[in-house]
Amino acid sequence: MSASLLDALRAALGPAQVLTDGDRSAWEIDWRKRYHGKALAVVRPGSAAEVAAVVRACVAHGTSLVPQGGNTGLVGGGVPDGSGRQVLLSLARLNRVRAIDAANSTMTVEAGCVLQAVQEAAAAQSLLFPLSLAAEGSCTIGGNLATNAGGTQVLRYGNARELCLGLEVVTAAGEIWDGLSGLRKDNTGYDLRDLYIGSEGTLGVITAATLKLHPQPAARCTALAACATLADAVALLQRAQARLGAGLTGFEVMGRFALSLVEKHFPALPRPLAPSPWTVLLEQSDIEDEAHARGLFEGLLESALEAGTIVDAAVAESVQQSRQLWHLRESIPLAQAEEGLNIKHDIALPVSRIPDFVVTTDALLQAAVPGARLVNFGHLGDGNLHYNVQAPEGIDAAAFLRGHEPAVNRIVYDAVQAHGGSISAEHGIGALKREELQHYESPVALALMRSIKQALDPQGLMNPGRLL
Amino acid sequence: MSASLLDALRAALGPAQVLTDGDRSAWEIDWRKRYHGKALAVVRPGSAAEVAAVVRACVAHGTSLVPQGGNTGLVGGGVPDGSGRQVLLSLARLNRVRAIDAANSTMTVEAGCVLQAVQEAAAAQSLLFPLSLAAEGSCTIGGNLATNAGGTQVLRYGNARELCLGLEVVTAAGEIWDGLSGLRKDNTGYDLRDLYIGSEGTLGVITAATLKLHPQPAARCTALAACATLADAVALLQRAQARLGAGLTGFEVMGRFALSLVEKHFPALPRPLAPSPWTVLLEQSDIEDEAHARGLFEGLLESALEAGTIVDAAVAESVQQSRQLWHLRESIPLAQAEEGLNIKHDIALPVSRIPDFVVTTDALLQAAVPGARLVNFGHLGDGNLHYNVQAPEGIDAAAFLRGHEPAVNRIVYDAVQAHGGSISAEHGIGALKREELQHYESPVALALMRSIKQALDPQGLMNPGRLL
Repeated sequence: MSASLLDALRAALGPAQVLTDGDRSAWEIDWRKRYHGKALAVVRPGSAAEVAAVVRACVAHGTSLVPQGGNTGLVGGGVPDGSGRQVLLSLARLNRVRAIDAANSTMTVEAGCVLQAVQEAAAAQSLLFPLSLAAEGSCTIGGNLATNAGGTQVLRYGNARELCLGLEVVTAAGEIWDGLSGLRKDNTGYDLRDLYIGSEGTLGVITAATLKLHPQPAARCTALAACATLADAVALLQRAQARLGAGLTGFEVMGRFALSLVEKHFPALPRPLAPSPWTVLLEQSDIEDEAHARGLFEGLLESALEAGTIVDAAVAESVQQSRQLWHLRESIPLAQAEEGLNIKHDIALPVSRIPDFVVTTDALLQAAVPGARLVNFGHLGDGNLHYNVQAPEGIDAAAFLRGHEPAVNRIVYDAVQAHGGSISAEHGIGALKREELQHYESPVALALMRSIKQALDPQGLMNPGRLL
Repeated sequence: MSASLLDALRAALGPAQVLTDGDRSAWEIDWRKRYHGKALAVVRPGSAAEVAAVVRACVAHGTSLVPQGGNTGLVGGGVPDGSGRQVLLSLARLNRVRAIDAANSTMTVEAGCVLQAVQEAAAAQSLLFPLSLAAEGSCTIGGNLATNAGGTQVLRYGNARELCLGLEVVTAAGEIWDGLSGLRKDNTGYDLRDLYIGSEGTLGVITAATLKLHPQPAARCTALAACATLADAVALLQRAQARLGAGLTGFEVMGRFALSLVEKHFPALPRPLAPSPWTVLLEQSDIEDEAHARGLFEGLLESALEAGTIVDAAVAESVQQSRQLWHLRESIPLAQAEEGLNIKHDIALPVSRIPDFVVTTDALLQAAVPGARLVNFGHLGDGNLHYNVQAPEGIDAAAFLRGHEPAVNRIVYDAVQAHGGSISAEHGIGALKREELQHYESPVALALMRSIKQALDPQGLMNPGRLL
């Protein structure tokens, strides 16, 4: 059976693109090294037609498929299980920019294009593809779409979903759906595009996408502001939205302990403001120029100082200073890793409920695990917190995780649910949060999702064991 | 059977909300008076629980349902068929604003809220709900979402889909799915929200929605520009997007013949520019103030004049003048109706392909129907044209439609398809374009849609005969 499938795959792709021995750890182990799988074969098709041939061969043999892009996912959605019977379908060779239509502000790219290459191809036309996230140098646009990736520009430009106008998909039956529309308006039937976006490879395989491009801003300006409370940070967000409108492209929050870890592990990084309970990083993208951007920023921050919403602020004086401020923010996950293992939560909440969520959940965690240290930071403008729990000082991190992870997750996710939030803001469900989804999602929604899965993948061969 | 269903409906809603006699034409005839149906009963539930009870009663009796909001649809999607056996489910009594969360920039409203009431409730909090279209005084937000409505602000703020964060839906099984999330990021499973949005009542009934609000602009400024060719108008769009960015909230195009009909039938309306082949209406929404808006506009138009992209321009000097410019644009459909029946096409194209589409399709139509008069206008910024065909001068309009409608549609839609466009940009499919969808949509997409319909409405009782 396996031998016959491998023969079919070799016939479809050529033997060089069907890897069955050698070191395949780049595909079989996830980026965080939490999942170690073993594939029957790693296959590397070079076109949508070859992807379709792979799917048809797998269907004919009743063998399941795991699609993979840049293998940078955080929830174990893109590596095979340990059975040695799944086919790992790498999209890496589908990496052509098929077309750029500057007058339509769109580009059509294949799924295996690295996000940074997509950004650069747009920039070469003086246009902006705004999706931006830490893994952009190695993640692929297909993976970004399959997981509806977020990142730092969502506040202004939306998630991956909002940046995609059309898709090409190989269905679970091995047919190619050409939905590569470059249209802003198209009301012809059910929204198949958004069903495949975020479906994590469980309904079909995204092979190409038509993306929405934006004008390049003429200038970007960054500032830090210090807030006494998280409620003040939320008030600053409202003030910034009212005064900057669509110019506000970044609004990140960093808790005092999170920044103290950066200071501890990366002491060379400049810290323009004294420590405060909450530090906000604001970014403005300006369609006019640097001076206009700075003028708006200074007006905003002065008014916020007067109102007592912030206690201090610093506006970057140069592009280099802007980069340093972003570097502070981006160093938090690294500083956290230096400090040791921790329990991560990628959660979303209505912005208005974040202050209460943090106060009450912090207290619940302290009661359950006295001394637990909370690394709290994230995309406050989107209501997205990375609310991570580090072992108490002097406690072994691995032992802490073994002893406390399930209880900590239950406390945090129960609080998320009570505050109308989501247990996965931008990382998806994958294998990691599959049981949590069953626990927290409404039975009605789960039943609808299962009906859709059954309808579009009746044999259950598309990335089984993920999401549902 | 019918009597038993009516008893069940009366028991669920009270007899006063189950209308079986009297004049029910307000529900049974569509706004354009193209569809004249007859319902078994018009039912008017007052809550999502009552909607669910109606659906369950209909399911138990194998009776199909037609949901209806403000009955302003243009494709016959919301009126019953002529059998007298369908239940017309009016959402009009579900008209509460359930909550406004200004700090989260969201509001939760019931499906029967009139769009204008939603806009006003947002404005009362100094926030903007940007969806805006001709029927806003009587259409409902539930209908807007069920059809993914568009309108004049899509360029900046997106369709109804992009303005909705969460839904409450009564499924085809009569269960309530509470997906009323106010979250900007939520990657927990398949995108049920966007599947119901645009599904035209064929998968379930939207009973409430959580909507995304935006900051109110401080000023709006409007201008007219005259272009010699449609390619120049597209070049002006690119220039305006680069210079105004998100400030550009409207970009409408009007052909010379379309404006000549306004002049003929509404001669009192001021016309600030001399007739030209194409006139563009630009709107800018400014987060700062009127003077800033006007300065940016004047800079843009001067540069476009210098480049030869436009031949003349006029910037509105007051809010009243702005209204007059919009009034010109909004009078086109009325002037058209005064001129007589015509064949309407609500189409979308990649913006870059619009000039070629219009030149080649105009020529094909002239060859097929010498003297046919083309009323061409629409939301050029979104690639959405209302490309309507009026009878040649002196020819009876009704006879023209009878003789030519199918052939004209075939010419136009074939050209739309050849240019990568959509046969329904913002009006939907309904009953009117159902056969066209079968003709033009790919078999793979149609099969996927049918699978979804079968999975979520296995008895086929939700708005049958529409969309699919």
